[in-house]
Amino acid sequence: MTSTYDNDNIFAKILRGEMPAHKIFEDEHTFAFMDIMPRGDGHALVIPKAPARNLLDADLETLTQVHKTVQHIGKAAMKAYAADGLTIQQFNEPAGGQIVFHYHVHIIPRFDGVKLRPHTGDMEKPEILAANAQRYIDELE
Amino acid sequence: MTSTYDNDNIFAKILRGEMPAHKIFEDEHTFAFMDIMPRGDGHALVIPKAPARNLLDADLETLTQVHKTVQHIGKAAMKAYAADGLTIQQFNEPAGGQIVFHYHVHIIPRFDGVKLRPHTGDMEKPEILAANAQRYIDELE
Repeated sequence: MTSTYDNDNIFAKILRGEMPAHKIFEDEHTFAFMDIMPRGDGHALVIPKAPARNLLDADLETLTQVHKTVQHIGKAAMKAYAADGLTIQQFNEPAGGQIVFHYHVHIIPRFDGVKLRPHTGDMEKPEILAANAQRYIDELE
Repeated sequence: MTSTYDNDNIFAKILRGEMPAHKIFEDEHTFAFMDIMPRGDGHALVIPKAPARNLLDADLETLTQVHKTVQHIGKAAMKAYAADGLTIQQFNEPAGGQIVFHYHVHIIPRFDGVKLRPHTGDMEKPEILAANAQRYIDELE
């Protein structure tokens, strides 16, 4: 198992502005945007700006800042989507479910009686992601 | 949706010593123990000692301390179980998958090619939980 940070991962590219993303929030230490393969409406990701592969190499300041933003986005999700709950997931290494090797936390708004959608690998339509991002942005303003 | 903290939840009882648990770690702010309905070998939980229902009402100090311990236990899990990865989950409100209403984070060691076991509601044998707890304790010493 490698534990190095690859500066060319797609989230690093998003942070550098080399790849697009449906951004919903940014502060000094963190960045939040829509997951392009959402498992539910409003599925968002929070990442640190500092390089970290995953939980195993993140420093305490990174953990603190990320989870502060996870809470901020989670509270916004409850209101923006009138959600009944939130499922938070964070995957480490391929066996743990990690696909992009920049530390990231999944925030998935949940609704009574609605299961998570399966991982299909299908990308959501950009206009839907943009509309869902806007619901966060309007709530966070 | 209620968002109150019920001081009689089972994790509060574990913290007060009124219910048993297979403890693996404790510090001033957090407590870690084995999940009695594990979805994989070594499935552990980290909880704050401070009362918090879930992510939505936890204060920043609680988030920080919990995730510091999650990382500590996660690193130990990788070694104690020779795991290939970790899946971290945290559920909020019933729609989000929460069953016990004291903020808690799931740490599940993962192995290449091994899926998470389904939620069956079956409790693991105490002797197996005790043996799995000991693997953490030996690693953390």
